Amino acid sequence: LGKSAELICVGTELLMGQIVNTHGQFIAQVLARHGVSHYHQAVVGDNLGRLTAAIRQALGRADMVILSGGLGPTQDDLTKEAVAAALGVPLRLRQDVWDGIVARFSRRGLEPTPNNRRQAELPEGAEPIPNPHGTAPGVLCELPPDGRRVIVCLPGPPNELRPMVRDFLEPYLDRWAGPERQVLMSRILKVCGVGESAVEHRIRDIMAEATNPTVAPYAKPGEVQLRLTARADSPAAAEALLAPLEAKLRERLDPHVFGVDDETLEGAVGALLRSSGRTLAVAESCTGGLLGGRLTEVAGASDYFLFGAVTYANAAKVAVLGVPESDILSHGAVSAEVARAMAAGARRVGGADIGLGVTGIAGPGGGSAGKPVGTVWLGLATPEGTWARHSLWPGLRADIRWRATQEALVWLRSYLLFGARAAEEG
Amino acid sequence: LGKSAELICVGTELLMGQIVNTHGQFIAQVLARHGVSHYHQAVVGDNLGRLTAAIRQALGRADMVILSGGLGPTQDDLTKEAVAAALGVPLRLRQDVWDGIVARFSRRGLEPTPNNRRQAELPEGAEPIPNPHGTAPGVLCELPPDGRRVIVCLPGPPNELRPMVRDFLEPYLDRWAGPERQVLMSRILKVCGVGESAVEHRIRDIMAEATNPTVAPYAKPGEVQLRLTARADSPAAAEALLAPLEAKLRERLDPHVFGVDDETLEGAVGALLRSSGRTLAVAESCTGGLLGGRLTEVAGASDYFLFGAVTYANAAKVAVLGVPESDILSHGAVSAEVARAMAAGARRVGGADIGLGVTGIAGPGGGSAGKPVGTVWLGLATPEGTWARHSLWPGLRADIRWRATQEALVWLRSYLLFGARAAEEG
Repeated sequence: LGKSAELICVGTELLMGQIVNTHGQFIAQVLARHGVSHYHQAVVGDNLGRLTAAIRQALGRADMVILSGGLGPTQDDLTKEAVAAALGVPLRLRQDVWDGIVARFSRRGLEPTPNNRRQAELPEGAEPIPNPHGTAPGVLCELPPDGRRVIVCLPGPPNELRPMVRDFLEPYLDRWAGPERQVLMSRILKVCGVGESAVEHRIRDIMAEATNPTVAPYAKPGEVQLRLTARADSPAAAEALLAPLEAKLRERLDPHVFGVDDETLEGAVGALLRSSGRTLAVAESCTGGLLGGRLTEVAGASDYFLFGAVTYANAAKVAVLGVPESDILSHGAVSAEVARAMAAGARRVGGADIGLGVTGIAGPGGGSAGKPVGTVWLGLATPEGTWARHSLWPGLRADIRWRATQEALVWLRSYLLFGARAAEEG
Repeated sequence: LGKSAELICVGTELLMGQIVNTHGQFIAQVLARHGVSHYHQAVVGDNLGRLTAAIRQALGRADMVILSGGLGPTQDDLTKEAVAAALGVPLRLRQDVWDGIVARFSRRGLEPTPNNRRQAELPEGAEPIPNPHGTAPGVLCELPPDGRRVIVCLPGPPNELRPMVRDFLEPYLDRWAGPERQVLMSRILKVCGVGESAVEHRIRDIMAEATNPTVAPYAKPGEVQLRLTARADSPAAAEALLAPLEAKLRERLDPHVFGVDDETLEGAVGALLRSSGRTLAVAESCTGGLLGGRLTEVAGASDYFLFGAVTYANAAKVAVLGVPESDILSHGAVSAEVARAMAAGARRVGGADIGLGVTGIAGPGGGSAGKPVGTVWLGLATPEGTWARHSLWPGLRADIRWRATQEALVWLRSYLLFGARAAEEG
């Protein structure tokens, strides 16, 4: 089964709930990617006895113990003391490390405090790991007799830990884990325009048969994610397992897969706009700019995104977008008529090929029996026609606003892929 | 020192790095609030042997062991088996729980599967904890001889765990922890318009003297947070410690403290607009709608937020906002002149008292030697005058866009509090 590693996150602030433990996820992903088994994580406060006990227990179960945090200069920072105590060795000042700390301070015109000397101490037999982004070096202890069992101490601040993982830990893991390791590779397929149960229904047989890679669905608001995970001897072998499964799922779910891994719906829509040479303008009411914000999160969005209007006040809907006042009076600001007029107005004012409008009631106030909180009308104005569609979303203000932007993008994607008939069908 | 509790989060998906462990922070905060000491957290996968060992170890250290996850119907869900194994008792089907599960399914016109029977099994001597939001009840084991040592199993999904913590665990902790406990209460003071080192300089003596409550600063982009933490016998006694420290810090940092705990800068600005009876319109370029999005995240924002224009294309700046084309040609779209004209245009078109404009280069492309990526010009148009200010922010596209909205809100807050002179000084 290859080698295994455990993570101990050190820090009272974690046990007080002051910060969320993001290192846990980050290190877990690194270990999976490098084929190192990972069965246990712990969080321990800045306490010498408890920390020493946790290190001893972890050494009894795993080939590598990774610690994060507790390398600072203060009396609270006890990670190296605990490692030394767990191994039964003393701490020793390393002159080369101390010289580096002094040089680092003097470059900024400062002198280290006596406390900083603690950061130059290492458990006997350990080696420092360079830290270009902070004062405290990391620590590598390769344990006797053969150095194959290892303790690694990483600094707590993410901007120091992450570069050290990239530059030191990942290459080290590659050598250390050896050829017997099993690489774990994941890929996320992102699906829109169809609910979780419908996705599961369509791919039920594939899910049941898939053992390596596995498929696990996860529902997010307005999106379903499918996680494919393969286990193999090498990244290339894992990739060779993932590719045919991805193709099978894409075929079954076509056209609802809009992206992979870090790809976003706004990025997918932007790519469709760009490749078809079309431009977009939006008009928003209840979403207040979030739809424009999502579309312009994509670098280079200025190539296709021309204009957005946040017409929160009805007067602005009339004055800026030319929404007929009579439509607002007879149908209300949240209506098919106004959504269509907003989309058409954005298209005209922005000089764009396509206009998209959003009007709704995000709450908590403003709802009525006929138009409860969560009611959203979308409008889509194109050269081939202008349409509206209705939704009713559950949840709080932020949920409803997010769903409204999500559904607007899903609808626009459908129009860009399949044209007027798809848009009309909603 | 009162009672102590440990948390064991169960789930292979945590050890694979597929999700971040938010339960760890949430439960830590609950324990701190109820005066229960918390020295250790663990994450263990869905493995009977390892899970049983982790429960035994935790029972050897703490008065209460809380487990989250692993209560589902599948063969992977082993938490109750592990609790039973750690205690040396069998699992027993509870007829009342099973009847409840059958009733829950039948309300939705469904029948439970044979697997669901596992969810009606409890370790001998345990009691179910009602779960109105899911099929799996929680589990409470009060251990012999006196029931003062306890195991609590909570469901993994946050929308089931959180209500169960609120409705069951928190009241239970209050009784169980007893009068000897020490309550830990925190409050976050949110500071804007002044950097972290300047904040620390201003309150250095207070930080050095404060032992209970303590003060710890934490820098976020465009914001400094000060965490005040008090330890006392009761919530009222903790509050009595926090209040004078908060007053002292507010006095020292006046007028930069804009909120407490969950309060937001957009909420603070909105409250100032509302209380002064003034209305706002915004014009955005590089932020693409995010500024409007933040302002309208506040419920009731329609009382003061009238209009936003996302004039990404220069043609829209001219056509919608009346920005002089000559300004764009001679100074560029990212300039003091255009920022002022955008603010003035938003104010006029939106019919608002105040106009706020943002134009900048969010990158990664579009920068030049004279105007590098991160350059942002803000404009503020008011009845007393129209001004512009310049910033240069480091970071990636999303960082720069966020900072631009943050600084726009900080500037607007300064104008709303202190009028034209403060706005002019930038």
